[in-house]
Amino acid sequence: MIDLYAAGTSNGLRARMALEECGLAYKLNPIALDKGEHKTPQFLALNPNAQIPVIVDHEGPGGKPLTLAQSTAILVYCAEKSGKFMPRDGAARAAMWEALMSASTDVTPTFGSINAVLRSEEPHAPSAELFKERWKQYLKVWDDRLARQKYCAGNEMTIADISLYGIYARAKAAAAQLCEGFPSVARWAGEMAARPAMQRAVKF
Amino acid sequence: MIDLYAAGTSNGLRARMALEECGLAYKLNPIALDKGEHKTPQFLALNPNAQIPVIVDHEGPGGKPLTLAQSTAILVYCAEKSGKFMPRDGAARAAMWEALMSASTDVTPTFGSINAVLRSEEPHAPSAELFKERWKQYLKVWDDRLARQKYCAGNEMTIADISLYGIYARAKAAAAQLCEGFPSVARWAGEMAARPAMQRAVKF
Repeated sequence: MIDLYAAGTSNGLRARMALEECGLAYKLNPIALDKGEHKTPQFLALNPNAQIPVIVDHEGPGGKPLTLAQSTAILVYCAEKSGKFMPRDGAARAAMWEALMSASTDVTPTFGSINAVLRSEEPHAPSAELFKERWKQYLKVWDDRLARQKYCAGNEMTIADISLYGIYARAKAAAAQLCEGFPSVARWAGEMAARPAMQRAVKF
Repeated sequence: MIDLYAAGTSNGLRARMALEECGLAYKLNPIALDKGEHKTPQFLALNPNAQIPVIVDHEGPGGKPLTLAQSTAILVYCAEKSGKFMPRDGAARAAMWEALMSASTDVTPTFGSINAVLRSEEPHAPSAELFKERWKQYLKVWDDRLARQKYCAGNEMTIADISLYGIYARAKAAAAQLCEGFPSVARWAGEMAARPAMQRAVKF
């Protein structure tokens, strides 16, 4: 059994999607960010960065409990534990790493930066616009790629799809206009949304 | 032989550090960002996101050429190709994923956001300050961790150290005040800087 500490942000969604898609038994422990539950001493003992998600795998490596933060680390951990959504070798594995890192190190932080600026005490539209433009550039490249292939890293689903869908689903719910004008991304997102595991994962 | 297309940014440094530390033969092809060399048709054919670094491994999987973008993907690729800096399993491997993702998905994009705001047409100090505060929070957690252990993911060096040192070396050169007040990070960075492979990697 795995304890998942999360909220319905892109990072929280990503971790829960990974657990659901990989078929790993878990219990969701909701963390109310608006109540500061990610800043309590109990939570900081799990992750001193005060960030969700965190998992505690009570049957981790060697049968010992393992505490793990960082949504993309959780994606990789779930894939390696279950043997799913990660090509074992070859060019397909390299393509998976590239697509995963594009989603997790570029697309996701850019959305975070838009929100950080707009929700600050002195919201500054031109600064937010910098990150909105960057977001659209990234999605344009994804749109071109998803016009040529079924999934993010080729024609098989990988954890790169879970990473990108986590941020896309969140952005579409919070700021739909950021997701308009990318028909191939929309095609792919529709297919992701239809997966039963994804439908279970997004109910926070 | 691997062709590396890069400039001396944190992402470019990270890729070159990985190649040097892993002992993989490569040729550096400098990309002058100030001349827009990352936006030429030739470069966009390597990476439509117009981002350095990119590697072309002429002896990739199955003996075929492989083109790979995303500095963290290149880190993982080099580690898997060389068998270095990546624990094979157990809690040490999970700790490596968490530390790697903290460096690559949190610390690095935060520095990028500071620069994006300050170098824009309408630089807005309070927006930059949001990201500077976040940067300092991340470095404080790293400082606490590096007071207790030798390297980012424990007492053995992993690709997480290469990821964090790539951004730290760049930030220290470009904005030294962002790196002040973190003595354990400074201790670790001094040890990283003394490594012969690192000394070769930073000469752009």
